[in-house]
Amino acid sequence: VSSETPGIAQLQSLLDDSPYHGFLRMEIVELDPEAKRLVLRLPFRPEYERVKATGQVHGGPLASLIDAAGTFLMWGALGIPAPTVNLRVDYLRPAVRSALVATATVRRAGRTVAVVDVDVRDDQGRLVALGRGTYGAQAG
Amino acid sequence: VSSETPGIAQLQSLLDDSPYHGFLRMEIVELDPEAKRLVLRLPFRPEYERVKATGQVHGGPLASLIDAAGTFLMWGALGIPAPTVNLRVDYLRPAVRSALVATATVRRAGRTVAVVDVDVRDDQGRLVALGRGTYGAQAG
Amino acid sequence: VSSETPGIAQLQSLLDDSPYHGFLRMEIVELDPEAKRLVLRLPFRPEYERVKATGQVHGGPLASLIDAAGTFLMWGALGIPAPTVNLRVDYLRPAVRSALVATATVRRAGRTVAVVDVDVRDDQGRLVALGRGTYGAQAG
Amino acid sequence: VSSETPGIAQLQSLLDDSPYHGFLRMEIVELDPEAKRLVLRLPFRPEYERVKATGQVHGGPLASLIDAAGTFLMWGALGIPAPTVNLRVDYLRPAVRSALVATATVRRAGRTVAVVDVDVRDDQGRLVALGRGTYGAQAG
Repeated sequence: VSSETPGIAQLQSLLDDSPYHGFLRMEIVELDPEAKRLVLRLPFRPEYERVKATGQVHGGPLASLIDAAGTFLMWGALGIPAPTVNLRVDYLRPAVRSALVATATVRRAGRTVAVVDVDVRDDQGRLVALGRGTYGAQAG
Repeated sequence: VSSETPGIAQLQSLLDDSPYHGFLRMEIVELDPEAKRLVLRLPFRPEYERVKATGQVHGGPLASLIDAAGTFLMWGALGIPAPTVNLRVDYLRPAVRSALVATATVRRAGRTVAVVDVDVRDDQGRLVALGRGTYGAQAG
Repeated sequence: VSSETPGIAQLQSLLDDSPYHGFLRMEIVELDPEAKRLVLRLPFRPEYERVKATGQVHGGPLASLIDAAGTFLMWGALGIPAPTVNLRVDYLRPAVRSALVATATVRRAGRTVAVVDVDVRDDQGRLVALGRGTYGAQAG
Repeated sequence: VSSETPGIAQLQSLLDDSPYHGFLRMEIVELDPEAKRLVLRLPFRPEYERVKATGQVHGGPLASLIDAAGTFLMWGALGIPAPTVNLRVDYLRPAVRSALVATATVRRAGRTVAVVDVDVRDDQGRLVALGRGTYGAQAG
């Protein structure tokens, strides 16, 4: 594990450079390398709707937000541009016309893999989805 | 479980109507209600890249493809516009500048939930990702 | 959801009545229906070893502890003898010659399913495994 | 990855030596290193019951059977006494007074982890549970 971890501005710039993230315009709200925690926000856009004019965010952008929160936490807290080994999402409530805020935490970083938990809340603080991912603990 | 299931053309039209699916331009290749199987294809576009000019498809579109394959299979084979309860994705190999083909199969449809398996292959037939999802067995 | 939930003594007695739990001799340490939290303890026994004389607890008893914690929480907090729909366990560290303490929390109880998180620690407080389960929100 | 893989008799002996497996008396029915497939059988015993005299097998022995099938497949097909990184079980049907037969297949063995699928059937061939596990691709 490298000790050279990128700061929040550098991470945001890496995020903005990614073509898919250009579609999903996410903002890094907080990075706490000590607590191994990152907060990532996805503002609502009609492009993310599951069904037109319902305001309901599709599960795909939600899964992408969770994956990105884990990936950028691995990078920002552990210095590792880690590949996602697997990702699990539990959808708890529909998110309607709301920004989504993902809080990612490293639960354990071992020799070969790390496990990251991600809670996603809407702008009223309601839990919308739970993510848990396994990330490679070495550069992919 | 309703016996009125939409056909492939109607499903494709439902798919095209979804704003998020307007970004992810997926094509229903096959729907076999008897075998409870659906094949969904995501042609490659640079917008799906994880890192610019690498051709590597981001895990987000991949997870979205898997989720959509399960969702539209529930609709097409069981007649249920089922909500996704949870989704699990194992990433096996990078997919590079390749269309992705997801084959979804209902493994079990119970009273309250159904379990769907989704294998994703690249255009050379290599297994790229495995998905498994729990879907509500009633309209959400 | 019934409001008649069994108390801790009644739950322990239900637990002791189960033949498989007679092998895994677990103790309910705490039940907090308000916080929807249950703490379940598995004392170490050589019968749980993966490999003889190593003291390392097999993943099976660990998964069983997690499942039981979720099941008895559903019963004790929500009054539902709920069937396990699915269970996911992340193994973080070997547990060696140590009692294991599982803390289960309901993250969300919906109409058809509930999601329960379970953290497992050894007797030095180290995180040994993470569990997440989907339980039917109606009696099975 | 070592090319020295134990044969079926040696694997069965390793299985029998494990104290926890002494409780769960499983039999290796088939090992096919070419197809990377192993079949493991758990005969019914009243000790595995969830509730006394119901004949219903507890989810714990089922999860243990799935984990063991994956572990011994990794050993028998790839020569790796691999640690289980995570395990996911979907319970599809109650198994009542029936032996359970688990068929495990390596879906992908990468540099750091392998993914194994396990289908569990009862003695009438009905699908009872689905397992999917991530195993370390190096000795643990």
